[in-house]
Amino acid sequence: MTRTVIESKTKTVTIGFDEPFCVIGERINPTGRKKLAAELEAGDFSTVEKDALEQVACGAMVLDVNSGAVFTNKMAEDPRYADNNFVEPMLMKELVARVQALVDIPLCIDSSVPGALENGLEMAEGRPLLNSVTGEEDRLETILPLVKKYNVPVVAISNDDTGISEDPDVRFAVAKKIVERAADFGIPAHDIVVDPLVMPVGAMATAGRQVFTLVARLREELGVNTTCGASNVSFGLPNRHGLGAAFLPMAIASGMTSAIMNPIRPQEMEAVHAANFLMNHDPNGATWINFARVMEAHKAGMPFPEAAKAGTSGGGGRSGRRGGRRRSG
Amino acid sequence: MTRTVIESKTKTVTIGFDEPFCVIGERINPTGRKKLAAELEAGDFSTVEKDALEQVACGAMVLDVNSGAVFTNKMAEDPRYADNNFVEPMLMKELVARVQALVDIPLCIDSSVPGALENGLEMAEGRPLLNSVTGEEDRLETILPLVKKYNVPVVAISNDDTGISEDPDVRFAVAKKIVERAADFGIPAHDIVVDPLVMPVGAMATAGRQVFTLVARLREELGVNTTCGASNVSFGLPNRHGLGAAFLPMAIASGMTSAIMNPIRPQEMEAVHAANFLMNHDPNGATWINFARVMEAHKAGMPFPEAAKAGTSGGGGRSGRRGGRRRSG
Repeated sequence: MTRTVIESKTKTVTIGFDEPFCVIGERINPTGRKKLAAELEAGDFSTVEKDALEQVACGAMVLDVNSGAVFTNKMAEDPRYADNNFVEPMLMKELVARVQALVDIPLCIDSSVPGALENGLEMAEGRPLLNSVTGEEDRLETILPLVKKYNVPVVAISNDDTGISEDPDVRFAVAKKIVERAADFGIPAHDIVVDPLVMPVGAMATAGRQVFTLVARLREELGVNTTCGASNVSFGLPNRHGLGAAFLPMAIASGMTSAIMNPIRPQEMEAVHAANFLMNHDPNGATWINFARVMEAHKAGMPFPEAAKAGTSGGGGRSGRRGGRRRSG
Repeated sequence: MTRTVIESKTKTVTIGFDEPFCVIGERINPTGRKKLAAELEAGDFSTVEKDALEQVACGAMVLDVNSGAVFTNKMAEDPRYADNNFVEPMLMKELVARVQALVDIPLCIDSSVPGALENGLEMAEGRPLLNSVTGEEDRLETILPLVKKYNVPVVAISNDDTGISEDPDVRFAVAKKIVERAADFGIPAHDIVVDPLVMPVGAMATAGRQVFTLVARLREELGVNTTCGASNVSFGLPNRHGLGAAFLPMAIASGMTSAIMNPIRPQEMEAVHAANFLMNHDPNGATWINFARVMEAHKAGMPFPEAAKAGTSGGGGRSGRRGGRRRSG
C-alpha cells in the first residue's frame, strides 16, 4: 500500500494505489508563457492568482508552482538577471507566498534551480511535493539531500546523464537507480513519485503502450507512485484534448496515480472523474454525479471554471438546464 | 496471436490483439425500441436502413442485427405471433437481406431464437459473427452445433444455468467451460469472442475493475478475444457518454478487442479512435488525424453522422472551420 502524503497548511492529499487520481495543476508556470513571464517581471501576480483559484475550482488537488521565468527587460539593466540562479529563488519565494495566501491545497515546488527549490521548501506550509530529481549524477547529489533535509516527497524523472532513452527498459532502470540512491539517503520508496516520461505518440508510435507497461512495472516492481506531464502524449497532433481524455483513463487503468495537467480542460477532467468511478475510487459515484451537473451547466454554455465553481459550492445542479444543451451528439 | 475473422460479401474484419478495436454497431435492435418494433411490424424498414448507413458512416466495422421484435398488433389477429420462434426467423431473414443489400460490412446475427440464428446464418453473405451462446446447457447443445455447421465465430456470454454471477471468478469459469465445450465440437478458441458481462458501476462499485481484470485473464489464460455491451456500465447514471468514453479506453488498455456499442455517439467514437492510436493500432495516426477533422466539423455544428460521412469521403477537412467552434472549453 504505497501512500505519498503531501500537505498544505491544513489539507492532506494522498497519492496512492487506492486513492482517486491526483490532479496536479500545471498552469502556474512561466516557461513557454511569455505573457505570464512579462507580468511576473513587472511584479504583476494577478494571472498567477487567477490560475490558482481557477485550478482549485476545477478540481486540482495540488498546484505545481514553477519559477522558470526569464526576465529579459531586467536583464538589460542588470546582468545578474541573466542567471536563473539569481532570478528563480526570489521569484519562487514570492510565488509560494502569493499562492498559499489564496488557496489551501498542497503545492508542488517546481524548478531546475536548487536555490529556488530550497526557497520554495522554506516558504511552503505543510509538506509540499518537490519537482524534481533525475537520474543525472549532479542532480541526485544536489536534490536528494534537500528531500531528506525537508522530509518531502519528490518527483523522479527517468532520464540520466545520457539523456532520455527511447527504450522503456532503460527508463525503468533509471527510475530504479533513483529509488535505490534515495534509499541510501534514507528516503523511502513511497516518497518517490516516478515520471516515466511520456513521449509524443505522433513522433513515437509505441509511446502510449510504453507508458502503460512502464507504469505497471514501476508499481509492481518498485512499489512507487507515478506521475507524468499528461499533455506531452498529444504534442503536435490535432484534437489534443480528445487524445488526452483517452490517455488519462488508460494510464489510470494501468496504475498511474497522478498527473501534472491542465485542470481547466473539461474533457480531461471528465475523463479523470469517470476513471476514478470505474476504478472504484469514487464511493457511490458521489463525485461523478456532482460533476455531471457541472458538465451539464458547461454544455449549456457556462465556462467550465465558472460551472465547476458553482458545482463545488453546491449550486451547479440548479443552474444547468437540459433544454439548454447546444449539442445533440 | 488470436485472430477472429469475420466477413461480408467482399470485406474482411479481424478482431485481434494487434488490430484496431472492433466497433460492432448496436442500433439495429427492436428490443427496447418500441417505435422500431412497430415499424417492422408494419413492414417498414426505413429506420433499419437509415441506421445501417449511419452506423457505417460513423465508423461501425460490423453491424449487429437483432430480430427481437414483439408484434403486438399481429398477435391480436393471429396467436402464432405471440411466439418469438414464429416471428424472429422470418424477421431475421428480411433484416439480413435488407441490410446487406445496402452495406457491405460483416454482420453479427443476434437472437435468442435458434431458428432466427439459423436463418440469419443462411442468409448472410461471407462469415458473420453469431450472437450468442451462453454457458447454459441447452444453449451450448443448441448453438455450438450451428457454430460448427456454418463455421462461424460466436459471442460467448459468461452466464450459465445459475444466472449471472457477481463473482468475476465464476464468470471466468463459465467462459472457460464454453471454450472447452466448443473445443469438443472442434471449434477453436480464436472463434470464441467472450463477453465477460459488464455490470452497472452505479449498482456494483467494483464493476469496472472486474471487467478490466477479467479481460486480461481471458486474454492471457484462454487466448480469446473479448467484447461487451459497453453502455451497461453507465446504466442509471448521469452523463453516460462521459463514463462510456472513459470505460472504452480503459477496457482497450486492459486488452478488450471489441464492443457492441452505439457508433452514432461522437464522444465514445472519439475515445475509441484515440485509444487505437495510443495502442499503436493506427499507423502514423492517419485515422486519428482524419477523425479530428470530423470532430472539428461536428463541434462547428454539423450532426456527427453527417460530419463522419463527409470525413469518410475525404471532404470533412475543408468544411470544418476553427473559428466556428461553439465551445471554448
